[in-house]
Amino acid sequence: MSKKLTKRSEDYSKWYNELVVKADLAENSAVRGCMVIKPYGYAIWENMQKELDRMFKETGHENAYFPLFVPKSLFEAEEKNAEGFAKECAVVTHYRLQNDPDNPGKLRVDPEAKLEEELVVRPTSEAIIWNTYKGWIQSYRDLPLLINQWANVVRWEMRTRLFLRTAEFLWQEGHTAHATKTEAITEAKQMQDVYAEFAENFMAMPVIKGVKSDSERFAGAEDTYTIEALMQDGKALQAGTSHFLGQNFAKAFDVKYTSKEGKQEYVWATSWGVSTRLIGGLIMTHSDDLGLVLPPKLAPIQVVIVPIYKNDEQLEAISEKVNFLVKDLRKKGISVKFDDRDTFRPGAKFAEYELKGVPIRIAIGNRDIENGTLEIARRDTLEKQTISQDDTVVFIEKLLEEIQQNLFDRAINFRKEHTTEVNDFKEFKQAIKNTGGFVSAHWDGTEETEDRIKEYTKATIRCIPNDAIEEEGVCVLTGKPSSKRVLFAKAY
Amino acid sequence: MSKKLTKRSEDYSKWYNELVVKADLAENSAVRGCMVIKPYGYAIWENMQKELDRMFKETGHENAYFPLFVPKSLFEAEEKNAEGFAKECAVVTHYRLQNDPDNPGKLRVDPEAKLEEELVVRPTSEAIIWNTYKGWIQSYRDLPLLINQWANVVRWEMRTRLFLRTAEFLWQEGHTAHATKTEAITEAKQMQDVYAEFAENFMAMPVIKGVKSDSERFAGAEDTYTIEALMQDGKALQAGTSHFLGQNFAKAFDVKYTSKEGKQEYVWATSWGVSTRLIGGLIMTHSDDLGLVLPPKLAPIQVVIVPIYKNDEQLEAISEKVNFLVKDLRKKGISVKFDDRDTFRPGAKFAEYELKGVPIRIAIGNRDIENGTLEIARRDTLEKQTISQDDTVVFIEKLLEEIQQNLFDRAINFRKEHTTEVNDFKEFKQAIKNTGGFVSAHWDGTEETEDRIKEYTKATIRCIPNDAIEEEGVCVLTGKPSSKRVLFAKAY
Repeated sequence: MSKKLTKRSEDYSKWYNELVVKADLAENSAVRGCMVIKPYGYAIWENMQKELDRMFKETGHENAYFPLFVPKSLFEAEEKNAEGFAKECAVVTHYRLQNDPDNPGKLRVDPEAKLEEELVVRPTSEAIIWNTYKGWIQSYRDLPLLINQWANVVRWEMRTRLFLRTAEFLWQEGHTAHATKTEAITEAKQMQDVYAEFAENFMAMPVIKGVKSDSERFAGAEDTYTIEALMQDGKALQAGTSHFLGQNFAKAFDVKYTSKEGKQEYVWATSWGVSTRLIGGLIMTHSDDLGLVLPPKLAPIQVVIVPIYKNDEQLEAISEKVNFLVKDLRKKGISVKFDDRDTFRPGAKFAEYELKGVPIRIAIGNRDIENGTLEIARRDTLEKQTISQDDTVVFIEKLLEEIQQNLFDRAINFRKEHTTEVNDFKEFKQAIKNTGGFVSAHWDGTEETEDRIKEYTKATIRCIPNDAIEEEGVCVLTGKPSSKRVLFAKAY
Repeated sequence: MSKKLTKRSEDYSKWYNELVVKADLAENSAVRGCMVIKPYGYAIWENMQKELDRMFKETGHENAYFPLFVPKSLFEAEEKNAEGFAKECAVVTHYRLQNDPDNPGKLRVDPEAKLEEELVVRPTSEAIIWNTYKGWIQSYRDLPLLINQWANVVRWEMRTRLFLRTAEFLWQEGHTAHATKTEAITEAKQMQDVYAEFAENFMAMPVIKGVKSDSERFAGAEDTYTIEALMQDGKALQAGTSHFLGQNFAKAFDVKYTSKEGKQEYVWATSWGVSTRLIGGLIMTHSDDLGLVLPPKLAPIQVVIVPIYKNDEQLEAISEKVNFLVKDLRKKGISVKFDDRDTFRPGAKFAEYELKGVPIRIAIGNRDIENGTLEIARRDTLEKQTISQDDTVVFIEKLLEEIQQNLFDRAINFRKEHTTEVNDFKEFKQAIKNTGGFVSAHWDGTEETEDRIKEYTKATIRCIPNDAIEEEGVCVLTGKPSSKRVLFAKAY
């Protein structure tokens, strides 16, 4: 397979698909719509998990694990949620295969092993979890219940793309129960903040925090809080959502608690999740025509060292130096790889680590040994410079921070350049057509208008931003009064 | 629910079932045979994962993720493996539910959304993984391929018990590919060693390393290496297995590589796994009639501090002291909880932490503040002693190690007392009946004899121990010649 990537300007979508495969992140599997996450891609997910898990625990949450399957009768209990997911769910109907009498060596479903009740492979776990919470919650003393689960879920999507939309994906789903509405809303907003902090500080991916319009809300929620990022092709990506579920699930599963005053009350709920989709967002925020560009805080390899040598003697002298350096860098918690494979030339290695987005590459050759120097190349700017070996550790530490910051700055500048305030529908259409990106516009608040705008432009309301200012305006499409601008964009 | 446990001597099985639920480890769910792992139980699993994952990475393995589903045609490719798992697998046949016209508000499988090919929910992932490896392995340079996956799997077992045997369970499965038979066998044995080290050093659970007889071998393997532990009721628990798969899967999925000499060769394989079953083993190795006893290295809470006070003023003085102590202990990496809830009395808290197996409990009261002392209670021996506050951190560090060691010593003594060498079938039956445990006996090597012994005594061959000495003997049942003793036991 050629290592050469399609250029983003030629075909952004093709560039993305090629990059995911060529950088060894993931590939399609034999199961329609399901991906294989390869070790390099999974290592990014592990780094994401580590930070998110820490943040969840710091905000008082514990992990638990609930069944993969949801019996149909539980699945259908919360009507809107069921309706939202019924169209795309994998259903287990049998529990045994047997030899196929008509095809020797082949198996078939054993017709006698039909389940009495079908099992839905969880597309999300509210139903099975709230059925469990019923047994856990009796009194106000049992609240709040703050639980997270790391799991796989399945949604039988018809059009799939690696990381962005797959039939099976990995995610975390938080499910919390509270005594009051205010507490539950505070929790849902807190988790939106946690997601935003993770996206910006670790992924270097700026996000807009906002609330979803009715039509984009999670099935079964009262309100969906979202973080929305902007990709390099001007399309938005919903990167994480946190739902205030009201008492919908408590009522569907009859989960009540005895208040301090001795009254029986329904519990208030939230749920919130981010998934392996984040890896798609990470790729499309920073990467370039040479390959991945990874932010140092999530890069599986932060520094790679490539020796440049002509013979074993030179390699030995270089290795001796490098081994000390590797130790010193690791002591600082920096992830470093010394690539001394003799089956590849330095040029091939350079290209490989560019493709894989390693933030810093160090090259060290015979002359460097003589001069006490080494060459440092940044993946983000492709700049190179030669520094003294004595300064390496401090230099690298600082440079990793600088790269992390530079990636965020670049992305936020891109977003600024691709956010347009418009005041009529002509401007709206032009903005979507010319620069893409976010379009900030007044909207009359109706689903009908939203649908018509989508029909004309393919743009949808990504969110009503949390920091939207109250201002008098008129809907770009209908001219009806509006008090706030909302953000539109074409979206993944 | 009464917190009082059934005594082990009364009904070991009942004691276990009650303990798992009362100590908040897990419970049965609405899905037949599937469990909910509660936060306290999941925290133990997280600690296990952390150590195992570190050990896998230190031995050169990387994590990846493969699909939950196995298309039927792949599932049936390796015949023995398919035969072994076909009888107990969950099968997805449809990808949509629809409103049931006969039952308003209910859903039913949409008959038009039938999958062309059924999907098996993975009971183990050899098939889907080896189908993927076909694309990853071309040359000897691609080998060895050393990959692990953390995942859920489903085996539709008829009789289930929390942690020990559940329809869905969590596990890790390693799947490696090698150029030579020797390398693959070395890998399989290495992972058996890793499992044994984890069991003994972290779980404080002594294990026998050995190889399975033909009838107990993994479906599709050439050899299964096992670690076998002994529970308090004299029954053995298979705690982890590592399989040398020969070229069975390489041939079933046509995975060949070009050797250095330019020849096309089939690849050699291993797979290995441990699961949430280990939590069952942990419970049954150490716990007592008061509740769980957890080894410090895996305990979610290593030290709990309970204040004894009569009024707020006293609590304040105690809290001030304790907050310093908590900080100092955490600095040493010790997991500590200060339980200052005012909704429970000290006695109730003591009972709760005994039930939950917290290794060390510290009680500190008003008089301790005056005297500069505190009271320390060990969960394993139930001994208490009063020490000076100045010595606490060093004392606790040492005591945690001592408890870890004591648990292991107790368990290995128990195993010694419950391992009997027998030379005829009368002795065999007596040993199984009297002390239970492992019975070391000569066996003629045939499956028929193994089956008959099982029929008479319910004991099976747990393994042929790695350290079995070559000695002349005769089979306890048939009197035929035998060169090695093997270990029998009744087993979970």
